[in-house]
Amino acid sequence: MTEFALIARIRARARTDDDVLVGIGDDAAVLQPQSGRALVATTDSLVLDRHFRADWPAADVGHLAAAVNLSDIAAMGARPRWALLALTLPVADERWLDGFLDGFLGLCDPFDVGLVGGNLSSGPLNVGVQLLGDVDPACVVRRGSARAGDLLAVTGTLGDAAAALALADTAPAALRERLRRPLPRVAAGQALASQVSAMIDVSDGLLADLGHLLGHGLGARITVDDLPTSPALAESFPEPTRRWPLQLSGGNDYELLVSLAPDRRESAQARCAALGLPLTVIGSIDRSGAIECIQADGTDLELPHGGWDHFG
Amino acid sequence: MTEFALIARIRARARTDDDVLVGIGDDAAVLQPQSGRALVATTDSLVLDRHFRADWPAADVGHLAAAVNLSDIAAMGARPRWALLALTLPVADERWLDGFLDGFLGLCDPFDVGLVGGNLSSGPLNVGVQLLGDVDPACVVRRGSARAGDLLAVTGTLGDAAAALALADTAPAALRERLRRPLPRVAAGQALASQVSAMIDVSDGLLADLGHLLGHGLGARITVDDLPTSPALAESFPEPTRRWPLQLSGGNDYELLVSLAPDRRESAQARCAALGLPLTVIGSIDRSGAIECIQADGTDLELPHGGWDHFG
Repeated sequence: MTEFALIARIRARARTDDDVLVGIGDDAAVLQPQSGRALVATTDSLVLDRHFRADWPAADVGHLAAAVNLSDIAAMGARPRWALLALTLPVADERWLDGFLDGFLGLCDPFDVGLVGGNLSSGPLNVGVQLLGDVDPACVVRRGSARAGDLLAVTGTLGDAAAALALADTAPAALRERLRRPLPRVAAGQALASQVSAMIDVSDGLLADLGHLLGHGLGARITVDDLPTSPALAESFPEPTRRWPLQLSGGNDYELLVSLAPDRRESAQARCAALGLPLTVIGSIDRSGAIECIQADGTDLELPHGGWDHFG
Repeated sequence: MTEFALIARIRARARTDDDVLVGIGDDAAVLQPQSGRALVATTDSLVLDRHFRADWPAADVGHLAAAVNLSDIAAMGARPRWALLALTLPVADERWLDGFLDGFLGLCDPFDVGLVGGNLSSGPLNVGVQLLGDVDPACVVRRGSARAGDLLAVTGTLGDAAAALALADTAPAALRERLRRPLPRVAAGQALASQVSAMIDVSDGLLADLGHLLGHGLGARITVDDLPTSPALAESFPEPTRRWPLQLSGGNDYELLVSLAPDRRESAQARCAALGLPLTVIGSIDRSGAIECIQADGTDLELPHGGWDHFG
């Protein structure tokens, strides 16, 4: 297949929405922003052998590429709207592309996100996604705005993706699903935006991302027994001291980590419950300047490695 | 250097503009669009050994990455505003990054384009850029809207970059400069938007990109003697029949190719002249359904290969 045949193949599957004035096939997309909203823009790339393996179904790669970007939009409390796709492919393999689009568009569609443009190159496999969204400029949630005295809470459960990586071929399907097909917390991000002082998605690992949440001089105390745990993780890692490192430093969770004033706890939890999603308080923010992990009996947990660094 | 040290290094060099509500360092950028304008979005990637060579100075790679994306915005008649950068690097080489930013920001700055976000991954070198701009929704210029009877015109000169590729190490500096440091025709794109019926940037080669300009049933006739030629190209390729293939099919020109009604010729040329840029009429649009290249004496030129295909 030629580059232009591949582009035609992608274009044939893209939505045609009224807010897309010019979509796939021109020099650039032209989009109609909603008046009064701020624009939100993010980009995240997936690299072979870093973020996915050659033996993954293409649909899982497509799903993950959409998910990691939707998760960044979610963490701003924003609404996702449009996607662009920069694919670098070693060969023009239309079956791989079709599978990739199954996963990518399959996750974009339920969020009404249209694929409006992109670029195809040949070279070592690299999946670049740009996601655009919008937000009420008065409701933007930053990372570094946690306050001493805030509670620390996280959506869903932690550690499943890290456990899938640790167990590799022996990982149960439920854990593998969380690694390859995470569900970005888009609705929760919008529901929580008015309730929280800071928000970030957990991609590099809870402790690493918590570090981004804490402004100058702030610290946090996490009660590790309170870390929300899926049944599949509890079954694969029944010993908590083997599970906690995965939950604290594993990454790839794509849950939302928030800080919030104690009097917002109930309303925030009620908003998440309405979405069928738990919001679990796991600790609090203080002025210690450090992150401390304690067990329910009050003893300190030895801190594992602080999270994921692409060049670490 | 760690990923976060590299990000801090990039952040320290980024502009801080009032229209950037949240810039580098959060989950996503938050931007303030200008009311009443449509949003324009494009993405283009540079791949090692495809778009640049390992021995290129990093600043040339940075310049080119910005240029190819700015050129797409220019071809919509739009104003560029913000950039995001998705860098996949084999190693965390801060000297390469500094050089890259010299070239990238050095071209973005004069257009008042701020770097507002991005992503760093480790893997085979891949430079992904997303560029956002805006445009009066009533003045969007499409590709496929040329009309029979329109003139065909192109900004600047054609063939220099292709000649630099053909001559490789023996290419004179003036030609090499056009390959590595093309100047996107941003001001010309905005100046021409109200004058033309269709516009595209010449990246794949004049004939290939002309194909995108022509709607169903349309054709074009190009007078090859009229192809605008730089002094450096004329000197390196004095024989026109060796030069024309480079100008027709070489690509990487990043000039603007437009179709326009004959009565717009003078005003369009005056607008370009005011920018110090020639706009040369090279042919016309007809209903032939084919592209014909003729010499000044009326004889047909054998058509070379139709342009660049990434998977061809």
